[in-house]
Amino acid sequence: MKVVFVGDVVGSVGRKALKNILPYIKKTQNPDFLIVNGENAAGGKGITPEIAKEIYDLGAHGITLGNHSWDKREIFEYIDEDKRMIRPANFPLGTPGKGYTILKNGSKELAIVNVQGRTFLPPLDCPFAKMDQIVHELPNRIKHIFVDFHAEATSEKIAMGWHLDGKVSAVVGTHTHVQTHDEQILPQGTAYVTDVGMVGSREGVLGMEREAVLRKFMTQLPVRFVSDSGKWQFHGISLELDDATGKAKKIKLLRHFEDEVRFE
Amino acid sequence: MKVVFVGDVVGSVGRKALKNILPYIKKTQNPDFLIVNGENAAGGKGITPEIAKEIYDLGAHGITLGNHSWDKREIFEYIDEDKRMIRPANFPLGTPGKGYTILKNGSKELAIVNVQGRTFLPPLDCPFAKMDQIVHELPNRIKHIFVDFHAEATSEKIAMGWHLDGKVSAVVGTHTHVQTHDEQILPQGTAYVTDVGMVGSREGVLGMEREAVLRKFMTQLPVRFVSDSGKWQFHGISLELDDATGKAKKIKLLRHFEDEVRFE
Amino acid sequence: MKVVFVGDVVGSVGRKALKNILPYIKKTQNPDFLIVNGENAAGGKGITPEIAKEIYDLGAHGITLGNHSWDKREIFEYIDEDKRMIRPANFPLGTPGKGYTILKNGSKELAIVNVQGRTFLPPLDCPFAKMDQIVHELPNRIKHIFVDFHAEATSEKIAMGWHLDGKVSAVVGTHTHVQTHDEQILPQGTAYVTDVGMVGSREGVLGMEREAVLRKFMTQLPVRFVSDSGKWQFHGISLELDDATGKAKKIKLLRHFEDEVRFE
Amino acid sequence: MKVVFVGDVVGSVGRKALKNILPYIKKTQNPDFLIVNGENAAGGKGITPEIAKEIYDLGAHGITLGNHSWDKREIFEYIDEDKRMIRPANFPLGTPGKGYTILKNGSKELAIVNVQGRTFLPPLDCPFAKMDQIVHELPNRIKHIFVDFHAEATSEKIAMGWHLDGKVSAVVGTHTHVQTHDEQILPQGTAYVTDVGMVGSREGVLGMEREAVLRKFMTQLPVRFVSDSGKWQFHGISLELDDATGKAKKIKLLRHFEDEVRFE
Ligand SMILES: [Fe+2]
Ligand SMILES: [Fe+2]
Ligand SMILES: [Fe+2]
Ligand SMILES: [Fe+2]
Ligand SMILES: [Fe+2]
Ligand SMILES: [Fe+2]
Ligand SMILES: [Fe+2]
Ligand SMILES: [Fe+2]
Repeated sequence: MKVVFVGDVVGSVGRKALKNILPYIKKTQNPDFLIVNGENAAGGKGITPEIAKEIYDLGAHGITLGNHSWDKREIFEYIDEDKRMIRPANFPLGTPGKGYTILKNGSKELAIVNVQGRTFLPPLDCPFAKMDQIVHELPNRIKHIFVDFHAEATSEKIAMGWHLDGKVSAVVGTHTHVQTHDEQILPQGTAYVTDVGMVGSREGVLGMEREAVLRKFMTQLPVRFVSDSGKWQFHGISLELDDATGKAKKIKLLRHFEDEVRFE
Repeated sequence: MKVVFVGDVVGSVGRKALKNILPYIKKTQNPDFLIVNGENAAGGKGITPEIAKEIYDLGAHGITLGNHSWDKREIFEYIDEDKRMIRPANFPLGTPGKGYTILKNGSKELAIVNVQGRTFLPPLDCPFAKMDQIVHELPNRIKHIFVDFHAEATSEKIAMGWHLDGKVSAVVGTHTHVQTHDEQILPQGTAYVTDVGMVGSREGVLGMEREAVLRKFMTQLPVRFVSDSGKWQFHGISLELDDATGKAKKIKLLRHFEDEVRFE
Repeated sequence: MKVVFVGDVVGSVGRKALKNILPYIKKTQNPDFLIVNGENAAGGKGITPEIAKEIYDLGAHGITLGNHSWDKREIFEYIDEDKRMIRPANFPLGTPGKGYTILKNGSKELAIVNVQGRTFLPPLDCPFAKMDQIVHELPNRIKHIFVDFHAEATSEKIAMGWHLDGKVSAVVGTHTHVQTHDEQILPQGTAYVTDVGMVGSREGVLGMEREAVLRKFMTQLPVRFVSDSGKWQFHGISLELDDATGKAKKIKLLRHFEDEVRFE
Repeated sequence: MKVVFVGDVVGSVGRKALKNILPYIKKTQNPDFLIVNGENAAGGKGITPEIAKEIYDLGAHGITLGNHSWDKREIFEYIDEDKRMIRPANFPLGTPGKGYTILKNGSKELAIVNVQGRTFLPPLDCPFAKMDQIVHELPNRIKHIFVDFHAEATSEKIAMGWHLDGKVSAVVGTHTHVQTHDEQILPQGTAYVTDVGMVGSREGVLGMEREAVLRKFMTQLPVRFVSDSGKWQFHGISLELDDATGKAKKIKLLRHFEDEVRFE
C-alpha cells in the first residue's frame, strides 16, 4: 500500500501549491491513499466546507486537522457530516467530529488518526492513553493505521513514535510547519518523522506574513497575522506499507518549491 | 572560509560520537572553524571544564551553550576564564560569561554569537534587540558572524533568520535536538537552518532514556532523566562563507549514524 | 456540621504554626472535621509518612495534596495505605492513591475531594469532568462534600465554583499560598473562596527563602529553594454546613500570625 | 498623603460601579490622589480615549493599565498625549506611552509606576531591573512612589514587594482580579498587597460572562468572551503615606457590593 501525506496547508498560497503538485504526485507516485492536513487551509486559520471540497477534488482521500480545527465557525455544523475529515481524537467527549476514520479504496482500507500533543498546547486528554484506546478499538482486520500527531515539542513526538512502534504503520508529526530530517522506520516497523513540514508561502514565517510575526516578537503588541502571498513550498511524505502486515517498508520526504518543480 | 557547526552534544554517547566523527570531518572538510554546542555534554545537563577541554582537544575552536548552560555548578567559576565558550547573550546584565566572542585562526576571524529564544522558554532579554546590539557592537572589520539561536519555536527561529538576513553570515538553530530539512541561503546572503539536530543516542528521546520520558508524559509524575546509552547519531552543518564579504555561499547538513559511517 | 480547612502547610515553620494554632482552633471551634493541605509540609516540597502522622496527631481527620504530592519518594509506597490522605483526583488512571475519600466522625460523614487545575500547571485529566464524575459516583447518602481545588488561575477556580454550585458543600482553592478576600456562599449554597492561603514563614515568598526566589527572578539562573525560617503565619477557613442538606451556611477566613495570637 | 487605588475596572458594569462608588469614596476619604486600573474598562479588553475621559471625569488623577493595554486600537494614537495614563514600563524601548508619570495635586506630588510580571505572561523586559532603573531615574524630591505591579504569579508579586521594600511607598498587585487578604506594611515601610481585586460583575468570572469561560475550560474550543452584565462588586485600597518620608502608615482594603452599599 502506498500512502502520501501532505503537511499543514496554509492559506491560498498553500492551496495553489496543492493544485500544482498533487496531479504530479498522483501521476508519478499513484498512491492508494492521499491524506492532507488542512488545519490552516482557510487563510492560515481553520478550514471551511468549500475549501475541504477543493482539497477532496484534488484527489485527497482524507483530511486531518489540529489545534486550528475550529477557527472557522462553519466547521461546527459541517464536521459530523464529512466522513473523511478528522480532528484531534483527544478533544473532550462531546466534541463535534471524530478523531479517526477508516478510508477505503477498492479492497484496501486505511485507518487514519489525528491526535494532538499537550506540551506548549492546550490541556486535552492524554494523547498516549487515547492512542492506546484507539488502537484497541479499531477492528482486528485493520492492519494499516496512519497517525498524524499534531504537536509542538520534539520530545513528545519522538516519545509517541516509540510508544506506538509496532502498533501502527506510521506516526507522522505536524504543527511546527518545518520538515525534519529524521524520517526513519523504527525497529518494530513503524514509519516515523517528527514533522512533515508545511505547504504555503516560503517567504513568510510558517506561511504567515513575516513582517507581522517579527513585529509581534519585537514589540509584544497585538498584531494581526495574515497568510503570506509569496512563492510556495510544498512538504509531504510518501510511505510504502506492507499489504499483509501494515508494517512500513519505506518512508520518503517530499519537498518541492515553486521555481524548481519540473513537470516533464 | 569553511565553518562546521555541531548541534547539542548529549552525554557520554554524544561525546563518543564526537570522537568518532570529528577526526573524519577535519580530514575531509578541513574547516577553518569548528564550533560545538555543548549545553548537554555532561550527562545531558550542562557542561564541566573537563568536558569542555575534551571537546577542545578534539579540535573545536569554540563552544556554544543554551538553556542548560548552568546545570553544572562548576561552570560559574570557570566560564569567565574560557575565552572560547559562550552562553546566550540575552541573559541579564551581570550574568557570568559572555554572549559572543571573536575566534581567530591564522589571519581569519569569526565572531560567534549565542542567543536564546523566549517562546516556551524563560523570559530573558529580547533576543532580537540583543542581536541588533551585538551586530552593532562588533568591530567593523568583522565580516563573518555565526549565530547559534537556541530556541524552541520554529516561528521564533525563522523570524530571527529573516531579521538577521544580510547582517550575519549564518543563523543556525539548536535546542529541539531534531535536524530540520530547511537549510537554505536567505535572499540577502545569510545561511539558515531551523535546527541543526543533536549528537547522542538515537535510541532515546532527544538523547535521554526513552522509558523515563514516556513515563513522564503518561503519568505526569516526577521522573529522573538520564542520558541514554544507545547507538549514536551525529548532526551538524557545514558552511562556506565568502572570504571578503562574509556572505554564505553554501550550507550543507551533516548526518552520521554509528553503524553507517565509513572511514575509508 | 463544622469543618475547618487549613491551607498549604510549608516546611517546619508551617508545622510549628500548626502545633501552636490547631489546639486553639479545636478548643474554640470544635470542628467535626479538620482537614489540612499537606503538599508542602516536608521542607516545602511534598510530604512523608512521618510528617503525615505528625499532622494527624495534631487532630487532622484528612490530608489533601496538590502538584507537590510526589516530591518525596516515600509517598509512593505509603499513599495507598493511608485512607485519610488524598491526591488530585485527575491524575491519570493508575496513579497511586485516590482523589477522594469519605471521612467519618461518629455518625457524621464528609466526602473530601482533591482536584488540580490545568491552567499554568501540567496537563492532567479535565478537572471539571472529573468532578462531575465524582459527584455522580459518591453514594446518595453523602450530602457533605468538601472540594480542595488546587489551581493557579483565578479564572479556573472561580469557574469551578460556579460549576459545582449546588452540587457540593464547598469549593475551596489552594496552591497560590495567598489568602483571597472573596469568601462567599454562592447562590445555590456552595461555600467558595479562591484561595485559603498558606501556613508557614511570613518573611519569605510563599514560605520559601526570599533571597533565593528573588535571585531566580532577577538572574534566571538555577537556584535551590529552601523553606524559610522566619516567623509564621497561619491561614485557613471554617465552614458551617447544614446537617440535613449539606448546604453551606457560613464561611469564615482564619488568619493568625506568630506575634499576634492570644491563647487566653 | 492619602491615596486611593481602584483595581481592574471591567466593562460597563465596572464603570457603573465607579459611578456609584467614587463620589462616596471622595466624600468619605477625600484622597489626595485617586488612581484607577483601566486595562479592562472597554468591554473587558482595553480602554478607549472616551472611556478614559469618563474615568477622569469621575475624579481619577491617573490611570494604570496592564497586559490588555493595547486591545483597543484607538489607544495607539492617544496614549502619548495623555500625561496621566501609564502602561507597563517594561514593554520594549519604542513602545507608545510611558511607564511612569508624576501626578501633582496642589503642592503634593506622587509618582505612579505601572510594571508587568513575566510569569505566565509575555516576555517583556525584566520588571525588577526596570523598577530599579525607574526608582533611580525619578527626581530626588519625589518621596511618594506608587507601583501597580500587574502580574499573575503570587510569587513574583511578593518578590517584588520585598525587592522594593523601603524604596517605594506602595507595591500593589493587579491582574488576577481577586482581592487578596494579605495587605500589610513591609518592615522598611512599603505598603503591599498581592492583588487589589477588580471592579465589575460579581456574577461572572473575573467580570466576564461565566457560561463562556466555563465552556472554554470544559470544551477547549474557541469561545468569545464578553463582559458580564450582573450586579457589580468594587475593590480597591486606600493608603496613608507619611508626607515627609513617603513611607506607608496605613493600608486598607476597600470592598463594596451593589446591594450592600449605603449612601447615607
Ligand atoms: Fe499548522
Ligand atoms: Fe497547528
Ligand atoms: Fe539541548
Ligand atoms: Fe536547550
Ligand atoms: Fe502549595
Ligand atoms: Fe501547589
Ligand atoms: Fe485585568
Ligand atoms: Fe491583566
